[in-house]
Amino acid sequence: MFKKILIANRGEIALRIIRTCREMGIRTVAVYSTADKESLHVRFADEAVCIGKAQSSDSYLNVQHIMAAAEITNADAIHPGYGFLAENANFAEICAKYNIKFIGPTPEMIRSMGDKITAKETMIRANVPVIPGSEGLLQSVEEAKGLAKDMGYPVIIKATAGGGGKGMRVVWADSEIEHAYNTAKIEAAASFKNDGLYMEKFVEEPRHIEIQVAGDQFGTVCHLSERDCSIQRRHQKLVEESPSPFMTPELRQKMGEAAIKAAAAINYESVGTIEFLVDKHRNFYFMEMNTRIQVEHGVTEEVISYDLIKEQIKIAAGVPISGKNYEPKVHAIECRINAEDPYNDFRPCPGKITTLHTPGGHGVRIDSHIYAGYTIPPYYDSMIAKVIAVAQTREEAINTMERALSEYVIEGVKTTIPFHMQLMRDPAFRAGNFTTKFIESFKLL
Amino acid sequence: MFKKILIANRGEIALRIIRTCREMGIRTVAVYSTADKESLHVRFADEAVCIGKAQSSDSYLNVQHIMAAAEITNADAIHPGYGFLAENANFAEICAKYNIKFIGPTPEMIRSMGDKITAKETMIRANVPVIPGSEGLLQSVEEAKGLAKDMGYPVIIKATAGGGGKGMRVVWADSEIEHAYNTAKIEAAASFKNDGLYMEKFVEEPRHIEIQVAGDQFGTVCHLSERDCSIQRRHQKLVEESPSPFMTPELRQKMGEAAIKAAAAINYESVGTIEFLVDKHRNFYFMEMNTRIQVEHGVTEEVISYDLIKEQIKIAAGVPISGKNYEPKVHAIECRINAEDPYNDFRPCPGKITTLHTPGGHGVRIDSHIYAGYTIPPYYDSMIAKVIAVAQTREEAINTMERALSEYVIEGVKTTIPFHMQLMRDPAFRAGNFTTKFIESFKLL
Repeated sequence: MFKKILIANRGEIALRIIRTCREMGIRTVAVYSTADKESLHVRFADEAVCIGKAQSSDSYLNVQHIMAAAEITNADAIHPGYGFLAENANFAEICAKYNIKFIGPTPEMIRSMGDKITAKETMIRANVPVIPGSEGLLQSVEEAKGLAKDMGYPVIIKATAGGGGKGMRVVWADSEIEHAYNTAKIEAAASFKNDGLYMEKFVEEPRHIEIQVAGDQFGTVCHLSERDCSIQRRHQKLVEESPSPFMTPELRQKMGEAAIKAAAAINYESVGTIEFLVDKHRNFYFMEMNTRIQVEHGVTEEVISYDLIKEQIKIAAGVPISGKNYEPKVHAIECRINAEDPYNDFRPCPGKITTLHTPGGHGVRIDSHIYAGYTIPPYYDSMIAKVIAVAQTREEAINTMERALSEYVIEGVKTTIPFHMQLMRDPAFRAGNFTTKFIESFKLL
Repeated sequence: MFKKILIANRGEIALRIIRTCREMGIRTVAVYSTADKESLHVRFADEAVCIGKAQSSDSYLNVQHIMAAAEITNADAIHPGYGFLAENANFAEICAKYNIKFIGPTPEMIRSMGDKITAKETMIRANVPVIPGSEGLLQSVEEAKGLAKDMGYPVIIKATAGGGGKGMRVVWADSEIEHAYNTAKIEAAASFKNDGLYMEKFVEEPRHIEIQVAGDQFGTVCHLSERDCSIQRRHQKLVEESPSPFMTPELRQKMGEAAIKAAAAINYESVGTIEFLVDKHRNFYFMEMNTRIQVEHGVTEEVISYDLIKEQIKIAAGVPISGKNYEPKVHAIECRINAEDPYNDFRPCPGKITTLHTPGGHGVRIDSHIYAGYTIPPYYDSMIAKVIAVAQTREEAINTMERALSEYVIEGVKTTIPFHMQLMRDPAFRAGNFTTKFIESFKLL
């Protein structure tokens, strides 16, 4: 087992990883930017190294500084968390060169899933259902028009290097396609320095349901059931839960099998997630694979009593997994609490937390790096806490969440708690009756 | 279902009950003494009524004031929590007279288990194993001597109205018995205004293992497995866990059956606990029944994913239980954090909490009523938080507990956290190798 792990991340996920390392008896190294020197991950790690200025490019994305910190502290492994360098194949390669274990899959696995077109081709070969679409990049607006006619509208145009909704356009009719194609191309070029576009059949009334998988270095792959992440705002997840209220035992089995096929197709090792779109007839289509731990992993941990970070570390250290598939035994739901003003278009609200009271009690898990007196820096993601509520049934879990949110006192900055409170009380949400478009028409009172 | 519940208690248990009421959509009334006006249970309840001065006898034990608060606020039920009036049959009777439901068993059930000799007789009739001992009260020191000779030393002398170790003496030889009898009698008279004593065979290398039970108004009784509460200091529990490291499937079945017999013998309704002593040969003996929710109930909640307070409220409202027995699926361990100085004979340390950071993350539950700026009053129990760690195995749960304790920052008062930290690292504790006498020889470093 590793003796010392450097955590190339910040915020709640850095703290999350430190916690498991401590439980496993592994020493930890925190790295931090000058903006994060008062952070809890710095305080709770065994060692801490400042790696640069506040801007991510100077610190959390600065590979040279991170590798120097790992060498200085004699770390034998690096956990990248999520975001930043977590899905950067070059970084994983550099770790290997330095003989420091990257806790995650190999650079080849990251690459094969990082490029969406390659990933889709791999899935087709592995017999995993994918959304019908263009083969390779669109060469011209004419080709796009022809394909869309064949598939039938609506279709969606996407940037091959994309993410977070950028370079993405839904097209409902022939008359709209030229404009959509051109604007998506410009946006993709500006955002990703890659203007490659592709097209897909647009799935109506879609749900985002993902399957957590784990694979080891010996070819064993298993699935750990689903998370429903349909509650999104501009393609950013806000609420996740397991099991999905839309799930049936048959669908879980089919999706679980498909997810295992998908991971096995690249001999995946580490924990990862296969994201699917599920339509209203319960057809499901592979969207992408996240070759890292996800923000919402805790939801799965709570429904199957399983530490996914521990599993990830053990797999990286060469420990075989059992191969057993897990099913949710209870219901868990997560709300991401962001320092944003929900009454002002969710504008980020960095600043100092003056008063803090954290909820507790039965069925409540809090993952957060904030404390009373902590100043949220403006440079990074605005997520400041994850609240997970667990109960025997979905209705009870929602009630527990509502209760926990009502106890949460965060003063000094605005947060998305009022949004979540209203969502938990929403009849359609309570009925489990929602798609990825639910939030578009959700009106904050 | 009840519309409004008055909680006749304070501290973490008042907050615990408010939480479940909120999750069930039941309105809550807090009552509080003048010393508790800044307490969280006052803040988080829907209504709050001051019922008197700081001393418990003026407030939390003042039945008239509590009933007046219930009448004024139109509460239709009272939850007594633990301690204070929770096992006061007269109080339960007065509630019935006022037509306010006492959330707990009937006055008769409380009485039948409140008197230890009656309870023992009931258990013998129900075929539940009890410790060999005197029939009824000891009439004289000569009778005590004769009985002890028949049973064989060691024996233990106890106050019939006793609790918390008062009026209790272990006697190892004939030469000690007169002194032990006389001092126990004086102590019993002083503490309980009842100098009645009885005698039992003293169980060597005993473990305190208790079985959680639930019974409804329709005669259905089930058990919810065991908690090991052997880690005690002067008969006060410090650490509780489930499953017991000493348990076997056979013993669980036998003790579960005995616990159900014990509860069924008095047609018990509500949740309750049958406390047993288990000797090193896994013989077990009924000690007493607690006809209330216990401090350590959360340990059971975590291993079976069950809300015991909700169950208690539902039973009181006439909802039938399923009757299914539950087995632990994971391991949970609880440390009671007291505002006491472990380096100074565990002397209480009331005072103001200046800085607070509460642990969180996977496998950690916190039940606490403290906050930064809160002043712990000197009038009540010194427990300020319960930390529960949950994991798939006992070893992992202990590791999680150690991690959680290491994150807990409470400044301004001394706490028992250093004691628990050392205990979690103790090889004998980790090996599950301990009896109720473990702490007697435990040396704080």
